[in-house]
Amino acid sequence: MSYPAPIKDSAPNNPDAPRTDMLADYRRVRTLSEHLCEPLAIEDYMLQTAAEASPPKWHLAHVSWFFETFLLRPFLPGYRVFHPRFEYLFNSYYEQTETGFWPRPERGLLSRPTVAEVYDYRHHVDAAMERLILEAAPTQWAEVSARLGIGLNHEQQHQELLITDIKYNLAYNPLYPAYRPDLAQAPVADPVPLTYTGVEGGSVRIGASGEGFAYDNESPRHEVLLRPFRLADRLVTNAEFREFVDDGGYDNVALWLSDGWGQIKTHGWRAPLYWRASDEGWQEMTLAGLRPLNPAEPVCHVSYYEADAFARWAGKRLPTEAEWERAAEGRAVQGHFVDDGVLHPRPAAAGPLQQLYGDCWEWTASAYLPYPGYRAVEGALGEYNGKFMCGQMVLRGGSCATSQDHIRASYRNFFYPHERWQFKGIRLAEDA
Amino acid sequence: MSYPAPIKDSAPNNPDAPRTDMLADYRRVRTLSEHLCEPLAIEDYMLQTAAEASPPKWHLAHVSWFFETFLLRPFLPGYRVFHPRFEYLFNSYYEQTETGFWPRPERGLLSRPTVAEVYDYRHHVDAAMERLILEAAPTQWAEVSARLGIGLNHEQQHQELLITDIKYNLAYNPLYPAYRPDLAQAPVADPVPLTYTGVEGGSVRIGASGEGFAYDNESPRHEVLLRPFRLADRLVTNAEFREFVDDGGYDNVALWLSDGWGQIKTHGWRAPLYWRASDEGWQEMTLAGLRPLNPAEPVCHVSYYEADAFARWAGKRLPTEAEWERAAEGRAVQGHFVDDGVLHPRPAAAGPLQQLYGDCWEWTASAYLPYPGYRAVEGALGEYNGKFMCGQMVLRGGSCATSQDHIRASYRNFFYPHERWQFKGIRLAEDA
Amino acid sequence: MSYPAPIKDSAPNNPDAPRTDMLADYRRVRTLSEHLCEPLAIEDYMLQTAAEASPPKWHLAHVSWFFETFLLRPFLPGYRVFHPRFEYLFNSYYEQTETGFWPRPERGLLSRPTVAEVYDYRHHVDAAMERLILEAAPTQWAEVSARLGIGLNHEQQHQELLITDIKYNLAYNPLYPAYRPDLAQAPVADPVPLTYTGVEGGSVRIGASGEGFAYDNESPRHEVLLRPFRLADRLVTNAEFREFVDDGGYDNVALWLSDGWGQIKTHGWRAPLYWRASDEGWQEMTLAGLRPLNPAEPVCHVSYYEADAFARWAGKRLPTEAEWERAAEGRAVQGHFVDDGVLHPRPAAAGPLQQLYGDCWEWTASAYLPYPGYRAVEGALGEYNGKFMCGQMVLRGGSCATSQDHIRASYRNFFYPHERWQFKGIRLAEDA
Amino acid sequence: MSYPAPIKDSAPNNPDAPRTDMLADYRRVRTLSEHLCEPLAIEDYMLQTAAEASPPKWHLAHVSWFFETFLLRPFLPGYRVFHPRFEYLFNSYYEQTETGFWPRPERGLLSRPTVAEVYDYRHHVDAAMERLILEAAPTQWAEVSARLGIGLNHEQQHQELLITDIKYNLAYNPLYPAYRPDLAQAPVADPVPLTYTGVEGGSVRIGASGEGFAYDNESPRHEVLLRPFRLADRLVTNAEFREFVDDGGYDNVALWLSDGWGQIKTHGWRAPLYWRASDEGWQEMTLAGLRPLNPAEPVCHVSYYEADAFARWAGKRLPTEAEWERAAEGRAVQGHFVDDGVLHPRPAAAGPLQQLYGDCWEWTASAYLPYPGYRAVEGALGEYNGKFMCGQMVLRGGSCATSQDHIRASYRNFFYPHERWQFKGIRLAEDA
Repeated sequence: MSYPAPIKDSAPNNPDAPRTDMLADYRRVRTLSEHLCEPLAIEDYMLQTAAEASPPKWHLAHVSWFFETFLLRPFLPGYRVFHPRFEYLFNSYYEQTETGFWPRPERGLLSRPTVAEVYDYRHHVDAAMERLILEAAPTQWAEVSARLGIGLNHEQQHQELLITDIKYNLAYNPLYPAYRPDLAQAPVADPVPLTYTGVEGGSVRIGASGEGFAYDNESPRHEVLLRPFRLADRLVTNAEFREFVDDGGYDNVALWLSDGWGQIKTHGWRAPLYWRASDEGWQEMTLAGLRPLNPAEPVCHVSYYEADAFARWAGKRLPTEAEWERAAEGRAVQGHFVDDGVLHPRPAAAGPLQQLYGDCWEWTASAYLPYPGYRAVEGALGEYNGKFMCGQMVLRGGSCATSQDHIRASYRNFFYPHERWQFKGIRLAEDA
Repeated sequence: MSYPAPIKDSAPNNPDAPRTDMLADYRRVRTLSEHLCEPLAIEDYMLQTAAEASPPKWHLAHVSWFFETFLLRPFLPGYRVFHPRFEYLFNSYYEQTETGFWPRPERGLLSRPTVAEVYDYRHHVDAAMERLILEAAPTQWAEVSARLGIGLNHEQQHQELLITDIKYNLAYNPLYPAYRPDLAQAPVADPVPLTYTGVEGGSVRIGASGEGFAYDNESPRHEVLLRPFRLADRLVTNAEFREFVDDGGYDNVALWLSDGWGQIKTHGWRAPLYWRASDEGWQEMTLAGLRPLNPAEPVCHVSYYEADAFARWAGKRLPTEAEWERAAEGRAVQGHFVDDGVLHPRPAAAGPLQQLYGDCWEWTASAYLPYPGYRAVEGALGEYNGKFMCGQMVLRGGSCATSQDHIRASYRNFFYPHERWQFKGIRLAEDA
Repeated sequence: MSYPAPIKDSAPNNPDAPRTDMLADYRRVRTLSEHLCEPLAIEDYMLQTAAEASPPKWHLAHVSWFFETFLLRPFLPGYRVFHPRFEYLFNSYYEQTETGFWPRPERGLLSRPTVAEVYDYRHHVDAAMERLILEAAPTQWAEVSARLGIGLNHEQQHQELLITDIKYNLAYNPLYPAYRPDLAQAPVADPVPLTYTGVEGGSVRIGASGEGFAYDNESPRHEVLLRPFRLADRLVTNAEFREFVDDGGYDNVALWLSDGWGQIKTHGWRAPLYWRASDEGWQEMTLAGLRPLNPAEPVCHVSYYEADAFARWAGKRLPTEAEWERAAEGRAVQGHFVDDGVLHPRPAAAGPLQQLYGDCWEWTASAYLPYPGYRAVEGALGEYNGKFMCGQMVLRGGSCATSQDHIRASYRNFFYPHERWQFKGIRLAEDA
Repeated sequence: MSYPAPIKDSAPNNPDAPRTDMLADYRRVRTLSEHLCEPLAIEDYMLQTAAEASPPKWHLAHVSWFFETFLLRPFLPGYRVFHPRFEYLFNSYYEQTETGFWPRPERGLLSRPTVAEVYDYRHHVDAAMERLILEAAPTQWAEVSARLGIGLNHEQQHQELLITDIKYNLAYNPLYPAYRPDLAQAPVADPVPLTYTGVEGGSVRIGASGEGFAYDNESPRHEVLLRPFRLADRLVTNAEFREFVDDGGYDNVALWLSDGWGQIKTHGWRAPLYWRASDEGWQEMTLAGLRPLNPAEPVCHVSYYEADAFARWAGKRLPTEAEWERAAEGRAVQGHFVDDGVLHPRPAAAGPLQQLYGDCWEWTASAYLPYPGYRAVEGALGEYNGKFMCGQMVLRGGSCATSQDHIRASYRNFFYPHERWQFKGIRLAEDA
């Protein structure tokens, strides 16, 4: 099984592409969402085992609602909405749309519309979108194509969520069902040794370069002062994290942030999210089912608290987002992405600054805050990023569930420090 | 669409029937469960919108687990369980089985086994049960047939729960999907006038007569003293309950039990569970979808608190369970049951003591407690009824979702006073 | 230290007594409330460690509010309330008074009025009440004296709550402070053997006899049928309950009601409320502080669930309230009451039907429901008893914290089955 | 009433002062804590109406426990602890002390030790501390005096908490009791016009200068890049915030961070914490009781969410902590502090950059994170600041409840964005 090949300079990152390229890209992105759902049973489409892990059915509908709301209704003359209540059911959190929305923790409590009806909805939206892409008035094209770029990147983000939510929801089941038992697996092995690459300090510029698509939260590009530092050449491995566990890491309060310790006490955390103790040692729940923990693979599905505690235990620290971006800038966006079809982080190769892109999102020591001079977009689309700029931490680099053409050096992902269900790992840093 | 005809003197109420009759009855009962699920979409099978409203898929599996646990494993030589984890997933609350059970509020959080797999499970159990019924050793037959009677009555109880849970779960959806839009509806009309029938007091005997099947909680038959009383000839109607609502019943604290008032304040109750205010007046969610409230139909889906408050408002009271049984004894078990295929309570005919059976369960003023001399069955089956004898109230008479051959004069149903999702109505009484 | 001597045929139970007797009784009852608080530090007066355990300061004010609301405001011309907001702060649960009330769980969150101000409030009410008792118009006297009877019995009930709440609140403190370290203690001893007394069945009359004061919930007197039974001659002892504990009683699900088992799982119950495991064996928190468990004393501070489970373990059952009253009727109201000044249940003497009164309230197997023909008083005073007739169980006989002249054979106390903070014990029964 | 005069170059900020100066300073700081409690009733000492608002009694004991734990036990030979359980009762959150601690939300549930006993505890610690200060071995003096500086600054922080917790706890009472009705009040007036002062950008150094006492979280001093900006010359006033309220600020979702909007929906916020709507317009609860809102006074007791929303509404933004420090550095620490004895923020005078110190803590747009190169102290004292570096926001400048000699340009205070009970206000900024 392999996923549709990405187009070079693909349209989601290039709003100036010809309309036929845009159309091809629209089709490619939309197809991948459905492709990712092919291994699911109808029952899996409806599953929601935590407020943040939405049902696949909901994702498929929500991304279509996004096109309907921000493109078809304002820009396609005569467009008829598929169902009058879907804007209530499939809006996620856009308060300014004024219809309100069905509560997030209850997305799994709706058996209707059925999966078949949701696919009908998608195809209704697709037909209209194709017309809009080809027929939008030239005077509206700048706005339409800009929103199309957001819509496709938005759907790519939900493709990653589809994968992580399916994983979370299936892992909740004591039968440990596999999403795709056929997924490729790396051979069990020892990791390559951990080395560091030094990076110079000084005044550097970070933020969106202005070439290609970027979210508003990557702007404006601005100058920051960095001290020289050293960055680990690969992600922390399962082998290393197991040492932390064996050393009593989860019992040693001196390693933990106060809120992290509270989390441990409340939820009884003893290991990363998908580790399971068994008579044969640690196992890990993956999208291919339960399997022995591979020491060479990056540790994954850890919270910020765990990343921070591990770094303290190791005598290191996490990098800031500026340090990460400084190290990544100018390097090719290469790594293990959703495009590989493996859906699991893989062991690092030897060499400097491996795994910067793909495999696991990397927790940084930076709070998610506006860059100096940041301005959110006007209207409901302005809620996309700006209203979350409080209480969350920045992650960088994408994961094995991210599309390769979705990620870049300036990309800022953000989650609350306790959240673990994304593919999140740890890269260490230290002062030079 | 019609349901399988019940057999007269059917086996669930007659453990001494010939084995072929027992087999026919087993098939008839088991078939009805699947029949009731035919109108469902796959997605509906998995839905659980409240802890007490289990997914249809779970009901179908649980009743099969019951046969597997209490009949096949102990009595059928060489029986192989269908799946080693199903006893954990599909046990409901039998603590003494020692495997534990999956938490009740999370029955809807399992997409696997799929619906198809659950049907396979049922058919696996059916094949084995048919063998057991025909081939069980004569020395074991008394115990096997007694348990078979419990197993079939148990499945009939879950058939009622299937219906009430499907109703609850679909009503949660803002699209108000119908389970079966084709269900027959009574014409909108005025109710027949409310009259009362006097019943003599004195020392009377209540409890299981010893003929036919009865649960342990109906025994022993014993004497109680009754004062003369008068019992309403029909259930309270929607028209009458709407008067109570219009008179500010839900705002008048003097009408309510303390716990009931707390319930109103906490949950904002303003009407029975399925009433919905609309621009065209009150509507009611039914298994055929949303429709205008029919004044002649019995008010349904009310809590004990509402039944008690209504009776106080009306200057009457609820009957005790002994009064109800006294009035019902000797009368034919006739009324509107699941067998009718209407699945909604219907307007009463004129005449004395109408609707005693079927239509709606009737809240009594009696707490669910053991009868004098009650002894629970030994072992896990003893958990069936006895361990719930605290904090609940008795209901009598069956409903439009009950099988006709499941109900009798001595039958004691029980629910917590706040629960509303069963077909529960109100019959008034007063001192003579 | 000794408490004021009770007056024979005291006024709270005799509304026809001369006004000077009524006045003497008013003073006697009011004095005892303050007397009970003498050992308290100012800080203890404000303490509330659970929603149901009100601060002593609140009790002292609430019982005064009761006189102010139901006697002084309606009947004493020109009466001025002490403070306009006190009716909001010190109403307990009378919804029909329409001023609302401060939330019960937050009674300990008010430092003002201070303790001194609450005593001023009491004395303000006392001065007015003395005038009312002596000067009320003859045409109003019947109503005034009836309400006075309720008011004094009400204050006696709160005296018991004062004691049980002080005990609960101090026991919450890890320093285990004693309320009165000087309280008398029974010598550690073995209990007298457990024997039973047979009681005949038949049709008997229970309920208030019409002589002396009784609450509305004891009426009307009515006939019930009893089967012959045997009643234990004393309460279950600590020694016997320790056997149950040692036998794994709290781990054996087969002994427990479903709701009781849920309570154990949720709250981790392993013993009665005030038992504390220590290196020297079980200790018990008392109003005199922590001390070794005395095997001869009655087990106390158990829930209905524990009483019921113990009886099941012992192969017995709890008596019904009718059985208890049948056995108690005609016997003198003698035993260990608050009047003794010991404030702890004491070992039983040998002989038939000991400890029926005093020592510990006795859980019965009867739900708290209205007697046939029960009518609540009109208006807010009708909330006193009637609105609680759902979900609670009846207890009989009074305790070591009850006033001797407050209790009688027909007295019905009631609590939720999980509640343990009153002095509640166990008397066993069995069928003859 | 006036507070003890601060000593110039006082010891808490000067560990190299002579021992007699240190002793004088110890006495001065310790005295102020007791002085602040003088207006309290005994009952007020025990009050805790929210998890974060500890009882005064607890504060008085906890700061003494701090000296006992970090100074007397390790450094004073032969020191005997006052009570063996006090380390359990009065530790706040130091997990590494290994005795555990009484749960924070339940500090108000302990009537013992009494207030008098807590004062005895203080005096016991004081006597020992005086000996330690004068007699500590020269080889230990460096460590002792460093910890003494922390201990005194710690007590000063709890003096501010004493004031804010007393305010919160009394404001919970519907009688609105005043802590001190005699406190001076500013005349009701119009505020001075709002002007801005421009500040140059560039590379600047922030953090502790190395002179005088500073907490570890102010280090290391380091360089940051700033763009030119303009800072408001005074705090936002009640008049301005009332405009925001009147303009529907609390109903306009576009103004709010996502978490802030959730807070509004959950808690029903409609105004700052202590504003109360009345028939005569807005009133404000103060330590002198309820009084009309003064338009010229700074708005106070707002959350970060409200500060951020107000700034957005005003078309401005909050300053970063580096901007604030840049503007404050070199200016004298002058303003309205606890030393004034007013305990309420006061109207600003005209002129550039007024109110930087005192009156209200100023929310900054900076998350509370470690400075580059930050190292926490080893051991339990290292928990003081470092473990909170996640999820909180920085505030600067001190308040009317802060001691003047406690504050400085580099001082970093931090709270969760939803917290309002401290004296927190708003200073606006904008890009130049």
